[in-house]
Amino acid sequence: MHEVAHSPHTHGPHIEGHFESTEVVRDIVIGLSDGLTVPFALAAGLSGAVASSHIVVLAGLAEIAAGSIAMGLGGYLAARGDAEHYVSERHREEREIIERTRDEEEEIYEIFEQYSVSRASAEPVLAALKQNPTAWVDFMMRFELGLEEPAANRAHRSALTIAISYIAGGLIPLLPYMLVADNLTALKLSVVITLLALAIFGALKGKLVGTGWLRSALQTVLIGGAAAAVAYTLANLLNTHSR
Amino acid sequence: MHEVAHSPHTHGPHIEGHFESTEVVRDIVIGLSDGLTVPFALAAGLSGAVASSHIVVLAGLAEIAAGSIAMGLGGYLAARGDAEHYVSERHREEREIIERTRDEEEEIYEIFEQYSVSRASAEPVLAALKQNPTAWVDFMMRFELGLEEPAANRAHRSALTIAISYIAGGLIPLLPYMLVADNLTALKLSVVITLLALAIFGALKGKLVGTGWLRSALQTVLIGGAAAAVAYTLANLLNTHSR
Repeated sequence: MHEVAHSPHTHGPHIEGHFESTEVVRDIVIGLSDGLTVPFALAAGLSGAVASSHIVVLAGLAEIAAGSIAMGLGGYLAARGDAEHYVSERHREEREIIERTRDEEEEIYEIFEQYSVSRASAEPVLAALKQNPTAWVDFMMRFELGLEEPAANRAHRSALTIAISYIAGGLIPLLPYMLVADNLTALKLSVVITLLALAIFGALKGKLVGTGWLRSALQTVLIGGAAAAVAYTLANLLNTHSR
Repeated sequence: MHEVAHSPHTHGPHIEGHFESTEVVRDIVIGLSDGLTVPFALAAGLSGAVASSHIVVLAGLAEIAAGSIAMGLGGYLAARGDAEHYVSERHREEREIIERTRDEEEEIYEIFEQYSVSRASAEPVLAALKQNPTAWVDFMMRFELGLEEPAANRAHRSALTIAISYIAGGLIPLLPYMLVADNLTALKLSVVITLLALAIFGALKGKLVGTGWLRSALQTVLIGGAAAAVAYTLANLLNTHSR
């Protein structure tokens, strides 16, 4: 959820390589961000309100199952939808440059007009595109619709990578509750190792994305810490009032 | 999480209006998808393993708190990061068209070459862009880097919309557990109203996005149902083995 703004499927191309991380790395980041945050916060919240660490582990594992399926299966279906959307829009453009040639020509002039390029200056480009219908369709897909061809088999791999990363991230905060019987001790251990994991993960992410490692580390720690603090306070309040 | 592939921040423009829903609608969809799915699955999973509906409600509310913060705050920081990334890349392009003019000219030729447009045909476009440095930078931002200017104040509004939608969606599956003391009865009620809510939500989403209402409804029901079934089975297994 954390990474909604960095979708791998709709990102533009980076010909200059301003941001060189691969799609797999981005999927791992998406899964780990949430996996480290939500199960951690849920476990912290429950640990203050229920007596048994058994229930904390149970709830944590149920959340990891639910979250990884929602992210993985949801991401898979969304990616497949994107791929189908691309194909259907492409067929539409292929038809339109034949059936509505004049309109499509006009659209090219309009694209260039946004950048103060006159019809006369754009005309040679249009002439060149008309020589090569495939290139013309490619051009319209990218410059008119802002769509790029999704990589084949992307959906499967992406869904699996995100789900596994979510599970791996989610197991870190739960480990102490599995190993230590006392909830309060487990909570303290969980807070320490998870905030540490969030900091390391945030720093690595910041290095990769180029936003600076310190700032990125502080942000991931802030999100995880805030979520855990609110969940903890809420669960404690509810528990006190309803018992 | 479900909607990672439909990020509002990185989506290309749709000049033809193939997909006309506003950004607010997309944020609501992002929040509701996960809000209806994960707390539902968590509550279903726990309901079979713990005796008291009190704990189910507690865990569900803690999850909603954690999830809405992770999505809201995470989305806010990601959107702010995107905005800063846009500004810094724009400054970079502004410098480059002055300091490395020849390289930037060459990049324009390379962009057009991908579409089989010769240097001679692209030359008038380059000449026009050189007349207007702002348009030239705009052109490079969009066609070389695939970046679009994020709307001002987008981050705040987006984060709040996503978080509120997540909370609203998450409260639906928890309602039966708040009102009915018996866990099994509450589970049945929760399954019925949540699958119904998922179907209605999926159908509306399908209408908006244009993927077809029936298919979209089946997909959201499938994701929610699968997540809940796996969480339920897992929690039951763990409970039987560790007691």
